[in-house]
Amino acid sequence: MRTISWSEAGGGSIHLLDQTKLPLSVEELVITRPAELVTAIQRLCIRGAPALGVAGALGVALILKNSEREGWSTALIEREIFALRNARPTAVNLAWGVSEVEPLISKGSNEVLQRALEIAAKDAVSCREMGRLGADFLVEILGNRKLRILTHCNTGALATTEWGTALGVVQELHSRGLIEEVLADETRPLLQGSRLTAWELQKAGIPYRILPDGAAASALFSGLIDAVLIGADRIARNGDSANKIGSLGVAVSANQVGVPFLVIAPESTVDRSIATGNEIEIEFRGDDEVTQIAGVQTAPFGSRTYNPAFDVTPARYIKAVVTDEKVYEVSSGVSL
Amino acid sequence: MRTISWSEAGGGSIHLLDQTKLPLSVEELVITRPAELVTAIQRLCIRGAPALGVAGALGVALILKNSEREGWSTALIEREIFALRNARPTAVNLAWGVSEVEPLISKGSNEVLQRALEIAAKDAVSCREMGRLGADFLVEILGNRKLRILTHCNTGALATTEWGTALGVVQELHSRGLIEEVLADETRPLLQGSRLTAWELQKAGIPYRILPDGAAASALFSGLIDAVLIGADRIARNGDSANKIGSLGVAVSANQVGVPFLVIAPESTVDRSIATGNEIEIEFRGDDEVTQIAGVQTAPFGSRTYNPAFDVTPARYIKAVVTDEKVYEVSSGVSL
Repeated sequence: MRTISWSEAGGGSIHLLDQTKLPLSVEELVITRPAELVTAIQRLCIRGAPALGVAGALGVALILKNSEREGWSTALIEREIFALRNARPTAVNLAWGVSEVEPLISKGSNEVLQRALEIAAKDAVSCREMGRLGADFLVEILGNRKLRILTHCNTGALATTEWGTALGVVQELHSRGLIEEVLADETRPLLQGSRLTAWELQKAGIPYRILPDGAAASALFSGLIDAVLIGADRIARNGDSANKIGSLGVAVSANQVGVPFLVIAPESTVDRSIATGNEIEIEFRGDDEVTQIAGVQTAPFGSRTYNPAFDVTPARYIKAVVTDEKVYEVSSGVSL
Repeated sequence: MRTISWSEAGGGSIHLLDQTKLPLSVEELVITRPAELVTAIQRLCIRGAPALGVAGALGVALILKNSEREGWSTALIEREIFALRNARPTAVNLAWGVSEVEPLISKGSNEVLQRALEIAAKDAVSCREMGRLGADFLVEILGNRKLRILTHCNTGALATTEWGTALGVVQELHSRGLIEEVLADETRPLLQGSRLTAWELQKAGIPYRILPDGAAASALFSGLIDAVLIGADRIARNGDSANKIGSLGVAVSANQVGVPFLVIAPESTVDRSIATGNEIEIEFRGDDEVTQIAGVQTAPFGSRTYNPAFDVTPARYIKAVVTDEKVYEVSSGVSL
């Protein structure tokens, strides 16, 4: 099953692998209405910057299919596109995917769909390219040996259309016989590491262990990690990178013990309109994500939380940003 | 209800507040057999270094009460004491509590019990003293103003006999009107922060928010924290401090942004037999703590984990260790 795909069934629909149900259940969501897609994005049924880019582009096609069938006004189309573009604020790819197909709206849904499918195909190619560039760079700086990789959140096929960003580098290293073990942060509050990354690693036959996010510093200081690989949701010109909450702390600890910390993301995640990470808007999410786990209340009723979905890692802690085009050594002062 | 107390009921018994059931249920465990106490310690029904010290001392009294009733051999008494002393390896206080009463064993259970109750009473006094010294030190370095404190794990009355270590400092600051807010790390995998610390703060009427452990770096880098206060399970002569997993990462981030990181623990937590933290044995715990939450499987079946219960924060990241006797500024080179 693909992370996200298009089907002509039902007059045009988007099929999503429902990531809130993994790893215990593999379920498909069939989406025919734009509002359902916005809800699916907000509930994190689909997440990951590159996958959100594809969702944005396919979402515009879905809006036009609905519009053509029901004769929507231009104002209604614009309202639906606005809701889609702003479903989540931090990942630049969602808005980017919408913008990529917007110039084609006047040509109708088929032209938009064609372009959206090209974006999806391009994403798969980009992931392979990031995998190669990232693996080559690690071999260059660490030697041609088996590596122990720490990663955070999920950056695999589930975050993209296939293969993955940071986990794409892991897959490429594994195909070269260069992975000893992956340590996957569980990634609270929504457990994308233990639910999604572990699921992908297990399916790929790559040795892995899951750790509480708080144990990452222990693993790094204990000499268990050769490199840290993460993805990104938005990257500023200077290399400051927004990624899943918890990334910053890992970067700081990696930096203290001299373990290279790499950000792997396509060029479409680079937001060259902003100079530094200070300009990145951070999404805050509800208290329930922290005070309840799997539907069970784990904190006193009425507890408030500090629950940002992302943090921003300053470029000084990032050895390199690896895109589908090149390797930017941002902590050495290279800008994007 | 007290964290741990002695009752003459049933020929002598230890009463514990079962901390695995909090915050949704307040239940008391009545323990009459030494093996039940060992299990309760290993299941973390009681935890926290000072409380474990009292449990060690009261546990020896319980062993002797059983022995006197049933006519145990010296070998059996020694075996039970060995099991108690080694129930958990990292917190020095458990073994310390056993050792404190051991010289009195030949005098019988009543002498041992007397000494154990003195240890419990002394712990309450120590906590008040740590609270005063810690609060005075913070006012000295940060000024007489309302503070925003980040803490990790649980170091309150539940970790001691009453009042607490790091949370005792918070209580003391609150009594002086100097707490603006406490940010409590949820503390995965066992959620001592969201389950226990939040429960104590709510009861005390102290404003708090709970955060995922991975969000601590974000809070620190965003300027939301004036000081970090944690407890300790074992402190080496140079100030290196073992504490709940996740403490190290918080210390490293606090250090990067110049926020003082303080360790609050009684002198009985200082292990002067070891020069540095390298000599501290770290307890590793089972995979289920990480792969299941509240009884629900959250990772693929068969997943292995990296699950150390503690990490060791090097003294260079610790502004000061505050004991019940004095303030040691360990990052400035002071040893204990």
